[in-house]
Amino acid sequence: MSQLDTGPIEAYLHEHIPLSKAMGVGVRSATRDRVVLSAPLEPNINHRGTVFGGSAGALAILAAWTLLHLRLTSEGHHVHLVVQRQAMSYEKPIRGCFHATSVLPSSNAWSRFTTTLRRRRRARIRTTSSLESDGQTVGRFEGEFVAVSQ
Amino acid sequence: MSQLDTGPIEAYLHEHIPLSKAMGVGVRSATRDRVVLSAPLEPNINHRGTVFGGSAGALAILAAWTLLHLRLTSEGHHVHLVVQRQAMSYEKPIRGCFHATSVLPSSNAWSRFTTTLRRRRRARIRTTSSLESDGQTVGRFEGEFVAVSQ
Repeated sequence: MSQLDTGPIEAYLHEHIPLSKAMGVGVRSATRDRVVLSAPLEPNINHRGTVFGGSAGALAILAAWTLLHLRLTSEGHHVHLVVQRQAMSYEKPIRGCFHATSVLPSSNAWSRFTTTLRRRRRARIRTTSSLESDGQTVGRFEGEFVAVSQ
Repeated sequence: MSQLDTGPIEAYLHEHIPLSKAMGVGVRSATRDRVVLSAPLEPNINHRGTVFGGSAGALAILAAWTLLHLRLTSEGHHVHLVVQRQAMSYEKPIRGCFHATSVLPSSNAWSRFTTTLRRRRRARIRTTSSLESDGQTVGRFEGEFVAVSQ
């Protein structure tokens, strides 16, 4: 799947969600099926010298939101998209740069989501992100997002 | 329950978890049973002009962590305390200053937690925070934390 230009996506996040700038969030790669965001340790450090759980959660939400938003836009949908619930497990302490990878739900789930969105102008979808650092999975995220057509 | 001095708690958070400073987190009140943290909209705003879900989650984690840490310290425990899993629901968009209130679990749950901590030097506890803004509950948080004696 062809890579999208990551610069404008990163600029959008930094401009519209200033906490992403404070966190040092970067867009490592983006396609219509998969988004990888990264962040360095320093601005996200906690009292233990590892990544603050709130930063890890925020990066996971951003990765999932960015992927859904990119994909919806590329399919011609103009929506407001917000997180409605999320859950996260922290499996290992994160001791350095970390990244969150969000992949699109199954094509069946995506098809149901966009069909409902077209029909009712409002639909919800579940998505997941995984957090990695130093080549290991360090956390898992699940979020439910609601899209409302504009 | 007597109020603790909020200044040193706020200074500790800002120094050791720099994202809390970037978010503008303040300690509104703190007792051994209840901690209320607050944050303004501006540094936590999203593309919709409301609070970014990652900021809301981070404030809830901080409130829960701060209460558990204060209470454990006041009872003479010296622990490392980290979030292991968390879940949050976003019930309403947050359009201004918001705060997270964390209250201590039941005295039975607390007693089991500290007994296990003394016996095994490691214990876990579930706790909740609620998010409020403009007099309304706007989100609910549940977190599981692990304490390890030092």
